[in-house]
Amino acid sequence: MPDSPAIFPATEYAARVARLQSGLHRAGIDALLLTTPADVFYVTGFLTRFWESPARPWFIVVPAQGDPVAVIPAIGAELMGRTWISDIRTWPAPDPQDDGVGLLTDTLATLVPEGGQIGIPMGLETHLRMPLADYHRLRDLLAPRRFVDATALVQRVREIKSEAEIAKIRATCAVADRAFARVPEFAGVGRPLDRVFRDFQIALLQEGADWVSYVAGGAGPGGYGDVISPADARPLARGDVLMLDTGAVRDGYFCDFDRNFAIGAASDAAKRAHAALFAATERALRDLHAILWDALIARDATPLDGRLGHGLGLTLTEWPSLSAKDNTVLRTGMVLTLEPGVEIEKGKIMVHEENIALRDTGPELLSQRTLDTLPEIDT
Amino acid sequence: MPDSPAIFPATEYAARVARLQSGLHRAGIDALLLTTPADVFYVTGFLTRFWESPARPWFIVVPAQGDPVAVIPAIGAELMGRTWISDIRTWPAPDPQDDGVGLLTDTLATLVPEGGQIGIPMGLETHLRMPLADYHRLRDLLAPRRFVDATALVQRVREIKSEAEIAKIRATCAVADRAFARVPEFAGVGRPLDRVFRDFQIALLQEGADWVSYVAGGAGPGGYGDVISPADARPLARGDVLMLDTGAVRDGYFCDFDRNFAIGAASDAAKRAHAALFAATERALRDLHAILWDALIARDATPLDGRLGHGLGLTLTEWPSLSAKDNTVLRTGMVLTLEPGVEIEKGKIMVHEENIALRDTGPELLSQRTLDTLPEIDT
Repeated sequence: MPDSPAIFPATEYAARVARLQSGLHRAGIDALLLTTPADVFYVTGFLTRFWESPARPWFIVVPAQGDPVAVIPAIGAELMGRTWISDIRTWPAPDPQDDGVGLLTDTLATLVPEGGQIGIPMGLETHLRMPLADYHRLRDLLAPRRFVDATALVQRVREIKSEAEIAKIRATCAVADRAFARVPEFAGVGRPLDRVFRDFQIALLQEGADWVSYVAGGAGPGGYGDVISPADARPLARGDVLMLDTGAVRDGYFCDFDRNFAIGAASDAAKRAHAALFAATERALRDLHAILWDALIARDATPLDGRLGHGLGLTLTEWPSLSAKDNTVLRTGMVLTLEPGVEIEKGKIMVHEENIALRDTGPELLSQRTLDTLPEIDT
Repeated sequence: MPDSPAIFPATEYAARVARLQSGLHRAGIDALLLTTPADVFYVTGFLTRFWESPARPWFIVVPAQGDPVAVIPAIGAELMGRTWISDIRTWPAPDPQDDGVGLLTDTLATLVPEGGQIGIPMGLETHLRMPLADYHRLRDLLAPRRFVDATALVQRVREIKSEAEIAKIRATCAVADRAFARVPEFAGVGRPLDRVFRDFQIALLQEGADWVSYVAGGAGPGGYGDVISPADARPLARGDVLMLDTGAVRDGYFCDFDRNFAIGAASDAAKRAHAALFAATERALRDLHAILWDALIARDATPLDGRLGHGLGLTLTEWPSLSAKDNTVLRTGMVLTLEPGVEIEKGKIMVHEENIALRDTGPELLSQRTLDTLPEIDT
């Protein structure tokens, strides 16, 4: 098999590691231990759907100085060998007696002095992708070295996307733009929602998605009830509001935005909801400091509880949350979703989403702006 | 939005909980805390692709007596409300100040006496899907209650599939069977591998997959190099061996098997490899106690290192591993993959996979048996 073209040149990854290492120095941490698909891909370029199997843990160690070390199951050696990572240590996983803990302990013991600190992300929106009992074993074996929280360190680096990353996200958004444009082809009166979900995934693949990690949506008379349910087989009917939301993936980068459609002529209430959502994101696009919430209230709409957008990139959602409770500073280079939602009437909602990159000059739209009126299908 | 039809009747979930509770009693554990998509779906029937977002943790508590309690983000309340679960407690996640820890602490403090034990899966093939720092906080808040490993307890229950579950996995296997039958339509000489991967995913959706969580494979002259790489754009050429492997999902249940194809006429070496793999799974299908490894050796083939199959169901892979190191007892009701691999020549491999259910009378094939000779495309 010929070498896959790397997603990015080695310089991209080296620059990421340099930024992480600068954070390690500032925090007095001797090495970073990463375990999740997004963190591993970020540092190494190791891209595989094999993460879908919970059978094996994967470890990347970023020391405060020097190159990252991959401590991974032998089944990944060939693919990791095609990345810029040169120090690759493997074990025959899964091994019930020792599933990499010994090898990882040896690696960290060499790179981190006794009394030193090992950073792992352990805060909001993170999890440790290894068995908890193995983490406890690792912690005991490496004592008196201490494990400390490196969430903020990793987030402040990952949240600022390089131009190369923004180009990837823009390309994935364009895939979804093309697929959304084709929705009227397969979402008319009488088409069951589960069939629409399938056809939408097919369109995303046909338009260039490598895979489709997320499709959600809803449909119902006058509005939908929630945005996380799988599709049922109810046929679309005149008067329904249909929403499709997707996290398609190309070259490892996600888009995450949705589009709403009226089946048949839109009701006045649905039109008003769409106009309010459009106005809210329009205002945020013009002045990101404008509060989406205020923009909805100004239109006499009832905003949904919860956040009104979030970070985006290597996973479907990243920090920060666009909410009153999140104090993350918005900075140039971040990629975000704007995702306001309103209640059309009790139990019937509408959610609208766009993807943007924050530039010195203001936000850049990565998704093609939705129409300012609710599109009507099959009138 | 009308109620989605539940995947199973409430009796199915109640029976699962009764089996878990019987394990809790035997182990002297007062409650089980579950956090992963598969464990939550298993107990509740809560099925959503929303797990793709790492932003929020989700908790299910199974007390030793009484019904399970869902402690979940408010965004999931409507969908959880359509399951058999009646005790649903929500918080407005994500909340950087307290992302559900307070609510979960209160819930567990009521259900588990001081000095009692809370079980969580922390062993091989598990992870805790919540921020590690929040777990530490929970542990401290609930002391002197202790957290103990419940991996075996959960695995011994989940690994025995009900008839209803086996029917679901059989249906997903049938989706993949139909998609595999169509591979010659889109995998001929000159077709780029990444295009083949996309077309295969499209075929799976057209044949009834709700979504396609996993597609892997490989192609190369005389064999492929590994089985976890994403596809590159190299066109298929005469002499290639192509493999496609899929974890498609329907109603929340996975299949996981692969098929091999020769592009043009197959080489003798590739034919021999395929025959050896076929013979190995054939023997295992006849007598599961026969060792796949021995069957390969007997054919003069070079088995690949690693496990030769694994459990299957709510995730792409489940325990046990078919390997010398895994001592899990094989029992009636388990669903497994048989997945032997051989080295055709140095750096060129072939892997073959089937899905089976273990019955009192022997294994039942859930995937349609592969041909005993390597199919040739575009000769």
